[in-house]
Amino acid sequence: MQTRPAKLLYIVDLAGTLLFAFEGASAGVQDELDILGLTVLAFSTAMGGGIIRDVLIGSVPPNALRDWRYSVMALCGAAALFFLHPFVGQMPATPIMILDAAGLALFVVSGTGKALQHELPPLNAILLGAITGVGGGTIRDVLLAKIPTVLWADVYATSALIGATTMVICRKLKLPPVPSAILGGSVCFALRVVGALRHWNLPWVH
Amino acid sequence: MQTRPAKLLYIVDLAGTLLFAFEGASAGVQDELDILGLTVLAFSTAMGGGIIRDVLIGSVPPNALRDWRYSVMALCGAAALFFLHPFVGQMPATPIMILDAAGLALFVVSGTGKALQHELPPLNAILLGAITGVGGGTIRDVLLAKIPTVLWADVYATSALIGATTMVICRKLKLPPVPSAILGGSVCFALRVVGALRHWNLPWVH
Amino acid sequence: MQTRPAKLLYIVDLAGTLLFAFEGASAGVQDELDILGLTVLAFSTAMGGGIIRDVLIGSVPPNALRDWRYSVMALCGAAALFFLHPFVGQMPATPIMILDAAGLALFVVSGTGKALQHELPPLNAILLGAITGVGGGTIRDVLLAKIPTVLWADVYATSALIGATTMVICRKLKLPPVPSAILGGSVCFALRVVGALRHWNLPWVH
Repeated sequence: MQTRPAKLLYIVDLAGTLLFAFEGASAGVQDELDILGLTVLAFSTAMGGGIIRDVLIGSVPPNALRDWRYSVMALCGAAALFFLHPFVGQMPATPIMILDAAGLALFVVSGTGKALQHELPPLNAILLGAITGVGGGTIRDVLLAKIPTVLWADVYATSALIGATTMVICRKLKLPPVPSAILGGSVCFALRVVGALRHWNLPWVH
Repeated sequence: MQTRPAKLLYIVDLAGTLLFAFEGASAGVQDELDILGLTVLAFSTAMGGGIIRDVLIGSVPPNALRDWRYSVMALCGAAALFFLHPFVGQMPATPIMILDAAGLALFVVSGTGKALQHELPPLNAILLGAITGVGGGTIRDVLLAKIPTVLWADVYATSALIGATTMVICRKLKLPPVPSAILGGSVCFALRVVGALRHWNLPWVH
Repeated sequence: MQTRPAKLLYIVDLAGTLLFAFEGASAGVQDELDILGLTVLAFSTAMGGGIIRDVLIGSVPPNALRDWRYSVMALCGAAALFFLHPFVGQMPATPIMILDAAGLALFVVSGTGKALQHELPPLNAILLGAITGVGGGTIRDVLLAKIPTVLWADVYATSALIGATTMVICRKLKLPPVPSAILGGSVCFALRVVGALRHWNLPWVH
């Protein structure tokens, strides 16, 4: 029983790595990077969040460097983009946004879960979960010299924070790890997708 | 007696977090970010320097994630900006620069102090103190896709380095921790404020 | 015998620090930074890769902060630029590119070597070697708000990856550390220099 949450976190982490690698590489297509540039971007986006999480938690070398499966996942994500990009280039932005939301949800779950395993206080487990979720995309945007999504996008960081909060509350209410993770991830994913589709805006400061 | 410097560092750290959160959020107002964007910017500016310091020193999870008071301080700083921004919007840049100088001085003191506690050699304690001081503001500028203050501003990094040097010299001269910290912080603060007001410039390379 | 690879890594690290400090400062001349801005850029470029490597490997405080010789090397590199810049300003870009390639090769060797010492799996030793090599230059470009070289330059990250791969294969074939390092570094250096001079391009994704 002890190892089940750890195994869940591991699968969630690998799935997030795959999705973010694809999504990261797709961001480079618009900026006319070559194949290796796209691969670098795929790796940065896919591994950035998890590496930040592991460094902050003191779990070094980070999983992404200790375990070769992360590199393989990131390579697969980048390769998928190379083969699919003629279709992606013509696809509307929505499917990419949905992939990104799924990656965000997976990393929020893995970050919050790992923070709880390391017994961080609830407020900081939420913060670490959100940092894990938005870290990879923020590195991607910084490398492309853009203002990162997390600062301006409709309910992006909000989704991460609310998803992580949901997961922490579930665990405090003694729900088992797996349903807590599914619930937290679903809330994060749903909020992000609905928020982006409906252009939910938070109040601005003028 | 043993715990007094540690307690001082803690208070200095929390005060710096509060000031930098306010200052970081105020930087986002000009870029027309929404409330959550400002909050993300406030957290990044306020916690960035301390997190870099703790990661470099191997004290993980960093204080800012281990202790919920940092999150509360960062939230208070961001909230203060939301309530005060009508006034801030009309204020000249000088008070913001003074707040920033105070945050810089506090983090230089906390970074240098923690480096000395971990028995880094003097030159590197100075470097770590300066990195702690300028780290949060540099993350803020990178997120806003600007060339960071530390690279171009009048005597910004210089103030941090001289403040940290003053503190290290005081400690080597066997002054107690508290006066050393006050002296180092005051030197950093004064240099930065006077340098900015008088537009002190260092020689350029042409 | 045990200490010889460690000593080699140390010398390689210091040499890379010196070269990257010079190269980092020279990048700031074009952006019209003052002397201290150039020095900050020199330190960031020179120490960034090694600090990232040490943080990821869990060897904290990083060598660059634990050992004062790194700071001295970075200062020497920056000082050399100040004295030589009238000539550098008139020099074509090629010599700077060659210095950068040498720094890249040295840091790829030191990163890969340290990863192997810490018994990371081969694929991840290669990845860590490449991150160490490109880390400092990427920080330099991010600070200057530019899209980093690693994303767009002719065979930049490729050289780092192939150099690191060469070194790992040599070690797996039971070659001693010193020739493995020399071979890996030479491959990285030669690929980067020839690739830049001949404008080798990888296929683009359109």
